[in-house]
Amino acid sequence: MSALPKSVLIPIVPESTLSIQPFPQSQKIYVTGSCPDIRVPMREITLSDTMTKTGPKSNPPVTVYDTSGPYTDPAVTIDIQRGLPRLRTAWLAERGDTEILSTFSSYCGKMRVEDPKLDISRFPTLYQPRRAKSGRNVTQMHYARQGIITPEMEFIAIRETQRLLEVQEAHLLAQHPGESFGAAIPKEITPEFVRAEVARGRAIIPANINHPELEPMIIGRNFLVKINANIGNSATTSSIEEEVEKMVWSIRWGGDTVMDLSTGKHIHETREWILRNSPVPIGTVPIYQALEKVDGNPEELTWEIFRDTLIEQAEQGVDYFTIHAGVRLAYVPLTAKRVAGIVSRGGSILAKWCLAHQQENFLYTHFEEMCEIMKAYDVAFSLGDGLRPGSIADANDEAQFAELKTLGELTKVAWQQDVQVMIEGPGHVPMHLIWENMQRQLQECHEAPFYTLGPLITDISPGYDHLASSIGAAMIGWYGCAMLCYVTPKEHLGLPNKHDVREGILAYKIAAHAADLAKGHPGAQLRDNAISKARFEFRWEDQFNLGLDPLRALEFHDETLPKEAAKTSRFCSMCGPKFCAMKITQEVREFSG
Amino acid sequence: MSALPKSVLIPIVPESTLSIQPFPQSQKIYVTGSCPDIRVPMREITLSDTMTKTGPKSNPPVTVYDTSGPYTDPAVTIDIQRGLPRLRTAWLAERGDTEILSTFSSYCGKMRVEDPKLDISRFPTLYQPRRAKSGRNVTQMHYARQGIITPEMEFIAIRETQRLLEVQEAHLLAQHPGESFGAAIPKEITPEFVRAEVARGRAIIPANINHPELEPMIIGRNFLVKINANIGNSATTSSIEEEVEKMVWSIRWGGDTVMDLSTGKHIHETREWILRNSPVPIGTVPIYQALEKVDGNPEELTWEIFRDTLIEQAEQGVDYFTIHAGVRLAYVPLTAKRVAGIVSRGGSILAKWCLAHQQENFLYTHFEEMCEIMKAYDVAFSLGDGLRPGSIADANDEAQFAELKTLGELTKVAWQQDVQVMIEGPGHVPMHLIWENMQRQLQECHEAPFYTLGPLITDISPGYDHLASSIGAAMIGWYGCAMLCYVTPKEHLGLPNKHDVREGILAYKIAAHAADLAKGHPGAQLRDNAISKARFEFRWEDQFNLGLDPLRALEFHDETLPKEAAKTSRFCSMCGPKFCAMKITQEVREFSG
Repeated sequence: MSALPKSVLIPIVPESTLSIQPFPQSQKIYVTGSCPDIRVPMREITLSDTMTKTGPKSNPPVTVYDTSGPYTDPAVTIDIQRGLPRLRTAWLAERGDTEILSTFSSYCGKMRVEDPKLDISRFPTLYQPRRAKSGRNVTQMHYARQGIITPEMEFIAIRETQRLLEVQEAHLLAQHPGESFGAAIPKEITPEFVRAEVARGRAIIPANINHPELEPMIIGRNFLVKINANIGNSATTSSIEEEVEKMVWSIRWGGDTVMDLSTGKHIHETREWILRNSPVPIGTVPIYQALEKVDGNPEELTWEIFRDTLIEQAEQGVDYFTIHAGVRLAYVPLTAKRVAGIVSRGGSILAKWCLAHQQENFLYTHFEEMCEIMKAYDVAFSLGDGLRPGSIADANDEAQFAELKTLGELTKVAWQQDVQVMIEGPGHVPMHLIWENMQRQLQECHEAPFYTLGPLITDISPGYDHLASSIGAAMIGWYGCAMLCYVTPKEHLGLPNKHDVREGILAYKIAAHAADLAKGHPGAQLRDNAISKARFEFRWEDQFNLGLDPLRALEFHDETLPKEAAKTSRFCSMCGPKFCAMKITQEVREFSG
Repeated sequence: MSALPKSVLIPIVPESTLSIQPFPQSQKIYVTGSCPDIRVPMREITLSDTMTKTGPKSNPPVTVYDTSGPYTDPAVTIDIQRGLPRLRTAWLAERGDTEILSTFSSYCGKMRVEDPKLDISRFPTLYQPRRAKSGRNVTQMHYARQGIITPEMEFIAIRETQRLLEVQEAHLLAQHPGESFGAAIPKEITPEFVRAEVARGRAIIPANINHPELEPMIIGRNFLVKINANIGNSATTSSIEEEVEKMVWSIRWGGDTVMDLSTGKHIHETREWILRNSPVPIGTVPIYQALEKVDGNPEELTWEIFRDTLIEQAEQGVDYFTIHAGVRLAYVPLTAKRVAGIVSRGGSILAKWCLAHQQENFLYTHFEEMCEIMKAYDVAFSLGDGLRPGSIADANDEAQFAELKTLGELTKVAWQQDVQVMIEGPGHVPMHLIWENMQRQLQECHEAPFYTLGPLITDISPGYDHLASSIGAAMIGWYGCAMLCYVTPKEHLGLPNKHDVREGILAYKIAAHAADLAKGHPGAQLRDNAISKARFEFRWEDQFNLGLDPLRALEFHDETLPKEAAKTSRFCSMCGPKFCAMKITQEVREFSG
């Protein structure tokens, strides 16, 4: 990986203007909460008028959930070298239960900062970490269980509601009743509901106290289904500037959280750049970095090295950690007859460690100690499924479900210390076995949020695995999964580039929204109704702008009918002027009306 | 549309060599039936050896269903101007119930042939049509009900079986038991089973006696799920050569049938070129051409014009007709309050006709007469869903289900004359309402095969509707839908080009295969197991070649690791050499083994 001269960072890459350009006819708005510093960002899409015989009739704007952060706000000057505004700093300070440290607590954190060779790749401003005061617990779950509604919770309630109460009358919102399979989705998302869901562990708010740039969001079965985008370089390719740009790119298209899965040399510095510039929660798999520290030899991993890595990353601001504590020694042999063995990187590293030492997984044996760290920074657990099936043949097998059961036990351990938990899930699962995955997870893990990778519903689609997995993702999202980890078209083949990231995110936005619709989430159908109305009325620009990817829609339309006039014409290139069904239908209405 | 000089047809378009080039390590094989002229094409994928400590161990080849016809057989010389070999001619002649006509029976068929202005765009060799002898019924359903197993049925039994009985031992086939929701999938597909399914109307064999080039295939709930690709020009764009090339392109990627939805000037000639060169069934929507004949004014349509069009197309060899006979006068007002009204082109044309004349749909009133034509050529009905929902809001409404009920009644009418029937379905349906669509169709239409367009599970994904609809398609395929009509990324935006056709077909191959896996179709998991084994053993080329799109997989892999050595290396660009989970797993196995 090339060293990174500071000067190359603005613009990060040539396409970066695209990443921060607002979408057509969209503007960033903020809904203010009970205090002026609770300003919840949304995107408002302005629509054109409907032409009627009696003159133009206006269409109310549509407000949509906005993950893109300050990047799409023209009022904010973006400076990647300074990072984003730290909107949570005052909230954190007000709580009075944290302190700013004068130095990093981890050995590695200190070393990286002091190493002059890293100056060239380091984020310019030193971030001073915050930690819970001795004996304090600073998790959102802890506050929730004390009955405290934090500003983060209020922010989330406003965010999830999306002005529905104000706009639903204007939109004459009709919506199919959903089928939520026993979820408890309320008609209105209140701050108190957010608190209650976090308190009982049915939702998490990944919000490290060292990530003050974060716009809070929630992951839980009774909220909008979220998606995660993975970025990260590997030893063979990619660079810091590309990874930062990928993060900005990911949230532009709708990534709710981003996992930095980097495994290269500048793993610490890459993460710092990403965190300081990220308005969404950042997750990592700390074992990747721990393994770097022992030169890639799993046998040499120790709890001490791992612990130092957790603290190093917690003080940078990572919001959730994937921890493969369920890969127990006794389960490893259960994978021996699998077609695809262990496909989780973390899982295979720990399996190798267990076998080499013939000892129980040190993440399992030190789990309570880990909770102590998590609660000092409010890092959420994402309990990794190290034994997830990597082929259709291996789906729902003994190894997978043995680990799931253990993850359920660990969930209870974490909850005893008020540490937030979500559970990772597969993988490769044929459609008819997805339901069992969701049901078992709900039972074994006490409704802690489920966070799955797909699942892929076949193995035979290399090059199209974003699509094959979005099928499984939509279904499990409907069944109750809270967050869907995207898969890109490069899965199984190579590292995704920006184009692949966009394809993967769009596939998953579709899956997540389809799940919201099927569950009957309040207001989920509003945007569908608005786009279909626009389509029916030949408001072409509105149709593009209400879509999940306005630029792609416009580009595809213009491929056959590039002229401006075609965007106001009452037909399109699919059927030509005489055969348009919608046009004929309107004539039918006029006739019968 | 430009006139078509004959000289441009070979090669049709510059990329055409790609359309006829066999896939890497694949060869066309033929399995012979009870007679030497029953030669069923399949594609055999040769695999490389597995390297073990004791030396190389061979992997048996994998046989897959092959829709690409003679185009991928290097032993066949393709000449688009002569058309494909007519493999069914002897079978048709042997049955002795048809006669070759000296002239076309339809007015329009005669006129087109005699018009010298069309010489330049006409297929060079005049095709002489065949028709049932007076009083004879030549449908596959009629033979089936007489207890006759036709060569077509035997061909299909061999084709659906895919040499499973020979190869399953070599592959040590393990497969999850499926969930087929009451389907009656046998362990072995025999000619007698094919006959019985056709006889009871639960499956159809679209095989017009004027399409002797056809390689027979079957559409039914107890067989492999099929997919259809739509091609066709419109008034605004596209040409004959492009449409023929799109057909060849479609079947290369796996289209089981192709619908020619052309609406332009040379609609008759385009169809002739497509039919003479197509090894898969061709479907049309005859109302489109009928409307051309009345200059696009639905009010001027008559039964006589329509009838002539049916005969014209039947004598060209169209295998199934979409007929919107269920759009009854009384149902049209039910669409008045919809968000998106009537979105089916055929549906809107007939709705307009009904209202203008205040009369019952002439397709409904002349339905029995239509059956007489269908049985004289063995054209299958695809009863169109002219009132399908075009938006999430309109899903499963009264208009949709009223029409479905009528289609069920018409199914019985057709079956009385031994005419084959399938039923078209929606459209736009949120996930939780898909099940009801399938259940009602099975009940109301007496298990006649269901053939759906998607369904799309949201309206907000213009530019990605192939993906959004593949989610609904996979689910309804699992629930019992027999054929899935593809949607391309250009849906709602423009006319698909070749790239879009490939994307659409691949999306639907994935959906159809996922459905086969979930239903537990015999042998469906064999290819998944083989690709996962190859993946686990780092047999990169085998992984690409076993995928649904070997060229895409190779291209994606080579984007990051283009060197030849990377295809035999035990890692990839995603994780780099030290972090590969699969590599570590193998080490774990060696350690524990």
